[in-house]
Amino acid sequence: MSGAIVIRPIAFVRGGRIEVEDDDWGGHESRIELVPELDPQSLAGLDAFSHAEILFHFHLVDERKVEMTARHPRNNRAWPMVGIFAQRGRSRPNRLGSTIVRVVRVIGRDLIVRELDAIDGTPIVDIKPVMAEFLPREPVEQPDWSRELMRRYWNRPE
Amino acid sequence: MSGAIVIRPIAFVRGGRIEVEDDDWGGHESRIELVPELDPQSLAGLDAFSHAEILFHFHLVDERKVEMTARHPRNNRAWPMVGIFAQRGRSRPNRLGSTIVRVVRVIGRDLIVRELDAIDGTPIVDIKPVMAEFLPREPVEQPDWSRELMRRYWNRPE
Repeated sequence: MSGAIVIRPIAFVRGGRIEVEDDDWGGHESRIELVPELDPQSLAGLDAFSHAEILFHFHLVDERKVEMTARHPRNNRAWPMVGIFAQRGRSRPNRLGSTIVRVVRVIGRDLIVRELDAIDGTPIVDIKPVMAEFLPREPVEQPDWSRELMRRYWNRPE
Repeated sequence: MSGAIVIRPIAFVRGGRIEVEDDDWGGHESRIELVPELDPQSLAGLDAFSHAEILFHFHLVDERKVEMTARHPRNNRAWPMVGIFAQRGRSRPNRLGSTIVRVVRVIGRDLIVRELDAIDGTPIVDIKPVMAEFLPREPVEQPDWSRELMRRYWNRPE
């Protein structure tokens, strides 16, 4: 694919889970530490928002294993074959993740968040505040397989 | 900043608004066309979701004009000075945008959406289905300036 766009980590995840797993992402607290080149003022006022959107790079996914067409989500044949852009799995073109987290607090160059489904060392490429006006403004509809897939996603680990 | 990550457009916006403006993004329908390298099967099943999340590149923003610290949103001095990561403006490190749109339909290699706040020609770097489980699971709180800023954002143009 042409037209390369170069982006750079603006922060890294420090702490939280160290291994990638499918489920049980609830209850985790993570620290997002700005890279040295960025001023802590870039986070000023973020703690006036209850939630933030974190864009990150699935850096451990092997580029050669990216799915370019369709597959069964989590390779579970009980679920229908759907396009990679109709699922949120890691092995996707550009390997970008996007998750809405709870903002816990900002301390200097650190943003403390809850329920970030990215492991220790993950490069963060953007942080945006969640504004209610940018959330869906109509009821959300989604297929049954996606509800089933998400059932244990935010469970607290035992 | 170190650690370059190279990403590539997976699609481009065709149609919709041709000039960047702050407000009145409501009511627009846009076509998102996959790049030739991608198979239309990558969109299969996306129309079972009512909403999708579109990650895109603010390609018209001059990299030298990116805000790295804090500013008044929209340069409006009536609003507080906040960090670039506490606002959603275009002139941000990595120049990535993220918007939740209505899925209208998939036709071959085209995804038709409503209320995408990106202009004709914008490179798209990811498309993800919106699952309710990934939306905030608690009430959203946000500062007054952000509510005021968003007041006319989704207005339909006259």
